[in-house]
Amino acid sequence: MKLRIVVTLKPGVLDPQGKAIEHALGSLGFGGVGEVRAGKIFELDVADDTSDAAIDEMCRKLLANTVIENYRIERAA
Amino acid sequence: MKLRIVVTLKPGVLDPQGKAIEHALGSLGFGGVGEVRAGKIFELDVADDTSDAAIDEMCRKLLANTVIENYRIERAA
Repeated sequence: MKLRIVVTLKPGVLDPQGKAIEHALGSLGFGGVGEVRAGKIFELDVADDTSDAAIDEMCRKLLANTVIENYRIERAA
Repeated sequence: MKLRIVVTLKPGVLDPQGKAIEHALGSLGFGGVGEVRAGKIFELDVADDTSDAAIDEMCRKLLANTVIENYRIERAA
């Protein structure tokens, strides 16, 4: 089973990488670009019988820092 | 208009971060975890009249290194 875990900074947490991209896009001449937020994505290939609880635990224990980050689990096939 | 740009390493390109996560999940006792690939996600707020060509150019010029990375553009609302 393919999983996508999307890890993004919580709203309100400063995102210097996003800010840098925002400014760089402006400098490159792209107009109309508002806020940019940078995040991480992990594509995992897990056994089909992996429980939701186990996947959630992987995110909380290793993939995301839940103090400053949110995570979202997306199932592919 | 909200955009999500997902940047992932091309197949065949070594992904040490993904490999490290794979091993760490194993060490933490999570079984059945196969390949893990790490990527980046950028959430952009752009003007509604931004053309597809402009978005594509942002990806090629700044957000992705097309030598080793693929990118995928996802539209939200």
